[in-house]
Amino acid sequence: MSIQGQSYINGQWVVPTGGKFSSWNPVTDSAIAEVSSCTREDVETAANAAAAAMPVLRAKSTDDIAKLLNTIADEIEALGSELIETGMAETGLPEARLIGERGRTCGQIRAFANLVADGSYLQASIDLAQPDRQPLPKPDIRACFQPLGPIAVFGASNFPFAFGCLGGDTAAALAAGNAVIAKGHPSHPQTSSLFAKATATAIEKCDFPTATFSLLQGSGHELGTALVEHEAIKAVGFTGSLGGGRALMDIAAKRATPIPVYAEMGSVNPVFVMPDALDNNLDDIAAGLAGSIVMGTGQFCTSPGLVVTLKSELAEKTAAHLSEQPQGVMLNPGIASALNSGIQERLGNSKVELLTGGLAKETPLKPCNSLMKVSAETFLSDDELLEELFGPVSLVVECDSVTQMQAVAKHIQGNLTATIHTQAFDDDAVKSLLAALSATTGRVLFNGYPTGVEVCPSMVHGGPYPASSSATATSVGTAAINRFVSRVAYQNCPDNLLPAALQNANPLGIWRLVDGEFSQTTV
Amino acid sequence: MSIQGQSYINGQWVVPTGGKFSSWNPVTDSAIAEVSSCTREDVETAANAAAAAMPVLRAKSTDDIAKLLNTIADEIEALGSELIETGMAETGLPEARLIGERGRTCGQIRAFANLVADGSYLQASIDLAQPDRQPLPKPDIRACFQPLGPIAVFGASNFPFAFGCLGGDTAAALAAGNAVIAKGHPSHPQTSSLFAKATATAIEKCDFPTATFSLLQGSGHELGTALVEHEAIKAVGFTGSLGGGRALMDIAAKRATPIPVYAEMGSVNPVFVMPDALDNNLDDIAAGLAGSIVMGTGQFCTSPGLVVTLKSELAEKTAAHLSEQPQGVMLNPGIASALNSGIQERLGNSKVELLTGGLAKETPLKPCNSLMKVSAETFLSDDELLEELFGPVSLVVECDSVTQMQAVAKHIQGNLTATIHTQAFDDDAVKSLLAALSATTGRVLFNGYPTGVEVCPSMVHGGPYPASSSATATSVGTAAINRFVSRVAYQNCPDNLLPAALQNANPLGIWRLVDGEFSQTTV
Repeated sequence: MSIQGQSYINGQWVVPTGGKFSSWNPVTDSAIAEVSSCTREDVETAANAAAAAMPVLRAKSTDDIAKLLNTIADEIEALGSELIETGMAETGLPEARLIGERGRTCGQIRAFANLVADGSYLQASIDLAQPDRQPLPKPDIRACFQPLGPIAVFGASNFPFAFGCLGGDTAAALAAGNAVIAKGHPSHPQTSSLFAKATATAIEKCDFPTATFSLLQGSGHELGTALVEHEAIKAVGFTGSLGGGRALMDIAAKRATPIPVYAEMGSVNPVFVMPDALDNNLDDIAAGLAGSIVMGTGQFCTSPGLVVTLKSELAEKTAAHLSEQPQGVMLNPGIASALNSGIQERLGNSKVELLTGGLAKETPLKPCNSLMKVSAETFLSDDELLEELFGPVSLVVECDSVTQMQAVAKHIQGNLTATIHTQAFDDDAVKSLLAALSATTGRVLFNGYPTGVEVCPSMVHGGPYPASSSATATSVGTAAINRFVSRVAYQNCPDNLLPAALQNANPLGIWRLVDGEFSQTTV
Repeated sequence: MSIQGQSYINGQWVVPTGGKFSSWNPVTDSAIAEVSSCTREDVETAANAAAAAMPVLRAKSTDDIAKLLNTIADEIEALGSELIETGMAETGLPEARLIGERGRTCGQIRAFANLVADGSYLQASIDLAQPDRQPLPKPDIRACFQPLGPIAVFGASNFPFAFGCLGGDTAAALAAGNAVIAKGHPSHPQTSSLFAKATATAIEKCDFPTATFSLLQGSGHELGTALVEHEAIKAVGFTGSLGGGRALMDIAAKRATPIPVYAEMGSVNPVFVMPDALDNNLDDIAAGLAGSIVMGTGQFCTSPGLVVTLKSELAEKTAAHLSEQPQGVMLNPGIASALNSGIQERLGNSKVELLTGGLAKETPLKPCNSLMKVSAETFLSDDELLEELFGPVSLVVECDSVTQMQAVAKHIQGNLTATIHTQAFDDDAVKSLLAALSATTGRVLFNGYPTGVEVCPSMVHGGPYPASSSATATSVGTAAINRFVSRVAYQNCPDNLLPAALQNANPLGIWRLVDGEFSQTTV
């Protein structure tokens, strides 16, 4: 039996009874296979099974969970070339990119395995009793993170592996000890099925509950709505558009029991090129920008959609470099058509000047690498120019002064990234620009390009709304686990009944806050 | 000029132009003074001033903030007997209680000062560059917490000091470096004005922006709605009823830019008395329960509203102890009337047996200490019995078996606390009860009573909805600061432009995660 495109619910491969949709090859612009959508009943089955699995998952040790994660990574690698070939067919992404993305995907799963095996992420805290304290004795109070409950994850289209149904959100949620129900992106259902197959094998090998992971396939909004509405679901991870993320936030907020939606959404990722950088480094920056703009055919969350600088040759030089970049292919007809409409609308603005590219010539699936420019005055007065165009397109905002560049920085709200090109590190203008950007941005870069998101403990891939739904959370890096935990305190609890992280002997050997001081000792 | 009952907005004492309401003495059941409510325009003034103050606040050092907090605590103490007398008049709470609560209030403000001065709460994390890494160099990435932006705080009525306009939420939000706009509870406007006066003096002494703290007085929903709707506000802290908290959550979720509402709401705080405890300790537990039920006239968030046990003498013995407890006074006519209606409704249920107390005899402001009992069968089939009655009232649920006690535990969702009385720590029934409760409760206690919430790093005063709006957050204890921060990453940022917490020399001397390992060293 081929499982490609099927759904995987509580240990069973299922051809659901909902509407059909087609997996699409964007390079050949043709259908690959017909796939069936899950229904509200499938959500019910998956969610109830996930809830029933939670007590078993809560009892798993950190070593058990680390082993599951490592086995999932091994099984993904064991899929071999079938995964790469299926991904290429369904996304149009080149082989080298997908091989690299598989490495990143397995790497981040293993990073979570290491984090869990280490155990310090549990943020264990112990306040010892003081029976003689006046006027009242102080009880023994201890707290640590625990699994939050079944988590729903919405896979993204643009990173079918690293942000797909076994991407960072699922890895983080599993690492925290949760059951996960992933909605695969309809752009790549066969790819999603392969990830589910690898995960199912790992679950069986590691003796975890079958409902630890379910995959629901589907297109349209109904399935996602049913999933977020289900009372068994305790939090949601999402990567995608602002419209999609906000819709899920609204659904979650209206539940009888509201839940958090961690949505990583749109961003224009402004790049500020300061006067000294224009003087000393203009051509290098123009080339770097062009390369960053076309990376992944512009379909990176961190694609630089806005360049803010003084009137200079930067826009024209960047356009020249951009016109030399190879033309890419969009991931699917929906994204391609949205980009084309966005470009069309922007070109309809007489105050926007097109420097290179423009509307797609043959098919929206093959967009032109495009650069436009606009004056700061226009930019500051037209909020439509704040909108993200998801694709290989950027807008240069030309300012009269550094002061006007500051005004532009304050005008742009909520970004995943912001970049400053300068070597004038003692300049007050740079300091005040940084101050403004760090209040509205998840990650501020110096002298680089925003595409490329390192997976490490210090990464913040998030930022104020509309970049994400939470200015404190990250969806990349090991801190992403903090989204999917609850915190429970135990007062005067006998040692044998405490979670291992809180027991006197510190059997996990982890860092704990003991009476407010970090230590790795027993108590 | 007397400032009592006035609002304090961006450094100005204001008699606003909104509707009038009366401060009420619940002991004498009479009005104290007429107070004017703030309007939407006052919100506008306060919120814009708070937003304008944020850049100045972001530039304050941890030492500056610690000094402000310590000075606020000093100034609160300097209010002397006026604060205690005003609080007594407006709340009916006895002198000893308010003196104790003032100690706790200043203690928690100073605890935040120590936390901030220490600096490790910033969760600084540094991943050093690896320029030679293959296939791509690894950039230098560092992240830490930063202020989130102006925070709105809704003071509670039941702890006019510790959860009032200068209570834990405000202390946590100021500690994180934020401007705060507090809505004082209309039950005690003169008390709120005194706290604002102390804070204003401290702000001036420490040279902080005047808009660091504003106090808006008001009754009715309009003012709170305007405050949560204001786009300058970035998060909300609330302590109060489920209805009030949920209303604010809904308003916040509908904003153009949704924000988190950290609401600590209702809870029935079940106490499970296991068979061995009935055998060995029944009378002590009955006495302890009675004392806990009447504490603060039952107006503690953690008041034990539910006792779950086997059929036994526990209910009758607890009723006997309860009937010997002195009668208290409710905080205000609104709470008193809600309690009386709740008792009336419950007594209308023929399956509920009244053991002591009942409806108030003279005035709802002086409720009877009441205990009712019901069979587990009835309890499991009637969701109205899950509702919290806020006052000196509890309900004993009598079960046929320990298995039925487990069923009751699974039926009760989302509590601030749950308590288990037992010494049978190796008993499987205790283990499975604890497993069920730790999935739905913020704090699980053994052999104690839930009233009394220790202020310490390990405290969790929160829990799954409807106990609170977030299963990860706490509103008591130093971890409460985590609700009011954003997280920002810096990539390849020059050392002199980094926040002090992330600089190479570790000038704050704090614990940092360096390449994933805790250390206090330089890098």
